[in-house]
Amino acid sequence: MGSHVRSRSTTSENPSDLLDFVALSLMPSWCRLPIADGLRQREPPADLFARLAVRHWPDAPAAIVAIRAKAQAAIARGAAAGLTPIAWSDARYPAALAAIVDPPPLLWTRGDPASLDTTLVAIVGSRAASTYARSVATTLAGDLAARGVVVVSGLARGVDSAAHRGALDADGPTIAVLGSGVDVVYPPEHAPLVDEIARRGLVVSELVPGTPPMAHFFPLRNRIISGVSRAVVVIEAHEKSGSLITARCALEQGRDVLAVPGNVLTGRNRGAHALLKDGAKIVESADDILEELGMRVARSGFRVQGSAGTSDPLLDCFVPGEPADLDELAERSGLVPSRLLPRLMELELAGAVARVGGGRFVRIGLGSKPC
Amino acid sequence: MGSHVRSRSTTSENPSDLLDFVALSLMPSWCRLPIADGLRQREPPADLFARLAVRHWPDAPAAIVAIRAKAQAAIARGAAAGLTPIAWSDARYPAALAAIVDPPPLLWTRGDPASLDTTLVAIVGSRAASTYARSVATTLAGDLAARGVVVVSGLARGVDSAAHRGALDADGPTIAVLGSGVDVVYPPEHAPLVDEIARRGLVVSELVPGTPPMAHFFPLRNRIISGVSRAVVVIEAHEKSGSLITARCALEQGRDVLAVPGNVLTGRNRGAHALLKDGAKIVESADDILEELGMRVARSGFRVQGSAGTSDPLLDCFVPGEPADLDELAERSGLVPSRLLPRLMELELAGAVARVGGGRFVRIGLGSKPC
Repeated sequence: MGSHVRSRSTTSENPSDLLDFVALSLMPSWCRLPIADGLRQREPPADLFARLAVRHWPDAPAAIVAIRAKAQAAIARGAAAGLTPIAWSDARYPAALAAIVDPPPLLWTRGDPASLDTTLVAIVGSRAASTYARSVATTLAGDLAARGVVVVSGLARGVDSAAHRGALDADGPTIAVLGSGVDVVYPPEHAPLVDEIARRGLVVSELVPGTPPMAHFFPLRNRIISGVSRAVVVIEAHEKSGSLITARCALEQGRDVLAVPGNVLTGRNRGAHALLKDGAKIVESADDILEELGMRVARSGFRVQGSAGTSDPLLDCFVPGEPADLDELAERSGLVPSRLLPRLMELELAGAVARVGGGRFVRIGLGSKPC
Repeated sequence: MGSHVRSRSTTSENPSDLLDFVALSLMPSWCRLPIADGLRQREPPADLFARLAVRHWPDAPAAIVAIRAKAQAAIARGAAAGLTPIAWSDARYPAALAAIVDPPPLLWTRGDPASLDTTLVAIVGSRAASTYARSVATTLAGDLAARGVVVVSGLARGVDSAAHRGALDADGPTIAVLGSGVDVVYPPEHAPLVDEIARRGLVVSELVPGTPPMAHFFPLRNRIISGVSRAVVVIEAHEKSGSLITARCALEQGRDVLAVPGNVLTGRNRGAHALLKDGAKIVESADDILEELGMRVARSGFRVQGSAGTSDPLLDCFVPGEPADLDELAERSGLVPSRLLPRLMELELAGAVARVGGGRFVRIGLGSKPC
C-alpha cells in the first residue's frame, strides 16, 4: 500500500468537508478506486468529487446536484439519529482500514468510536449456524473480550450474532459492521442486540443512514469487517458462504486468516476446512488467535503437560535439549536396558520424552518457549 | 535410509534360517538397531545372533540356549496354528517396513500375505472414540477400500476396529497389527473381527505366537503400523493418545501424516489438531488421502462448482487466467458498470470469479487442474 499520509482532523472542525465526503461515498461503486487514489494524494474532497463527477456525468449536472442533496439529507438524518460520521480526514478513521485498496471515504457510526482504537479481531461464519458453531463463536468472542480484544462481526444471524453476544457477555465492547445504514436493523430481530452494541461498542456502516439492506451491499461490507481487523476467524463456512469472501478480502488486505475446524461429515465446514487446506491457521481456542497476533499467551500446554508435575527420576537423567541413547541413559540411571525401555515407552506415551531416531530419546516439554 | 539390498527368498526354502530370525526377534529390544544393521549388511542371521549374543551375554550361554529353545517352540506353535512367518529375507517382507530404522527381523502373519503387497494406509485413533470418530473411520476406510487401498490399523477398540470394519464392509481386505502374538486376541471381544480379518486380509505381529498383550508392546507395534503404510490418518486423538506415537513414528519414517478435524470444544481432538498445526494434511474425505498419495481423484469440486454448469454470458467476457477491470468488462459485456458490479458480486459469491486487487476480477474454476 505504501504510506498514506492523511491530514487528520475531526470532522467537526471542518463541517463543509463532511458534505463532500458523504457525496463521495454516494458516488457509484466503480468510483471507489479513483476516490481512494485521490484521497491518498490529499486531493481536497470537494475537488475530487467535482473531478470524478465531471468525468462520469459530463452531460448530467442534475445527477451531481441530486447527490449533493442526498448527502445533505443524510447528514441531517444522521444528526437527528445521533450518529457520528467519521470521514477519511478524521483522526478516528481506522488506520488499518485506510490502508486497504478501496477504503470508504466515510464511516457512519453509532456508539463509541474509541472501540475502533484497539486490537480488533473479526469472527464471521454461517448464518444457518449449528449449535456447535454458535457455541464456539460465543466462547472465542468472550475469551478475546476478556483479553481486551474487540470482536468485529456483521450482525448476521448465526455465528455473527453469537460472536457479538459472547463479547458483550464478557463485558467487552464489540463492533458490528452493517450492510445497511446504521439506523436500519437487519435482521429485524436483532434490534435489541444492535442497541446493546451501540451502547457498549460501535455500529458501523459506509452506507448513508436509511439505506436498506441489499444483497450486493454485503460482499462490500465484508471488506470493512476484515479491513478494520488484524485477523479474521471463520467458523462453519459452507462452500459458498459470504464468510469466504471476507476471508478472501482479509488475505488481499494482508490480514491473518484463521479457521475453526469441525465435523467433516455434515458438509457444514467445507469452507473453513478449505481455508485450512490453503494455509489458514487452525483455531481451537482464543489462545491460538492471540498467539497469531503475537500477544502473550498462558498456554495450558499440550506440549508441556506430560512433564509438568512429573518427578520421574529418569527424566532427570536427560540433559535438556540433548538426545541420549539407551547406553547413556542406563549408565546415568543405573537401570538395566531391559527395565529402561518400558519406562521410556511410558514416558513417551505420557508425552515427556520423544524418540528422535537412531534409537535415541530426548526429553520434551522442558525448555520450550516460556509463556 | 539408503538402499537396503536384501537377499530375498521364501523362508520355506531355507527353514534353518527361520529359527535364527525368530531367535533374533526374541533378543531384548535394545538389540534392535544392531540387528537391523547386521541384516542390512547381509550378515547371515545365525552369525548375527551369535555375535550379538556373545556381546550382550558373554557369561550366560544358558540365555542363548533358552532363546533358541523359545524360538523352536514358537515355530512349532505357529505351524500348529497355521501361521505364516515372514522373515527379513522373505520376498514377501514389506519393502517399506524394511526401510525403517528398526525393522522387525520377522513378522508372524495369519491370513493372506498378498494383502501387504499393495497401497497401504493406516487409520488410527482414540480407543474411547465418539460416535463421530467411529463413523468417520468407517466411512474413510470403506471409501479407501473401494478404491483398492488396504487399510491398516491396530485392532484396538474405537477408531481402529471401526476402520477395519469399514474396509471389510466395503469388501476390501484390511491388515491388523497386534501388540500381542497373532494367535492372542486383545481386546477379547474382537475375536470375531480378527477371524474375519484373517480370512479376508491379514493379522500381523512381530511378537512370537502366544505373547500376551503388554503395555510396552503397543508403542513398538505402532512403528509397524506406520512402517508398512504410505500414510497415517489420525482420527480423534487426545493429547496423550498412542495414535500420536504412531504419527511421530510415521514422520520419522518419512510417511505422510494426515488428520481429521473435529469439535474443538470437547478436547477429544486436541492431538489431531496439534498435528494439523504442525503441518499434517487435513482430511475431510478419502479423496484428500488419495490426493496426498498422488492417486487420481474425481473431485466433487469446491473450487470448480461455481463455474460448472454455469452459462452466465458475463463469464465468457473473461480471458482465461487474465484479470479484467470494470471498464474492460463493461466494454466486452455491454453492461453499464452500475449493473456490472452487482452481477460480479453474485458471481464472486458463487465462486465463479475472484477479486484480485486493483479493482480487477478474474474468472476461477476453469483452467484449474483437470481431473
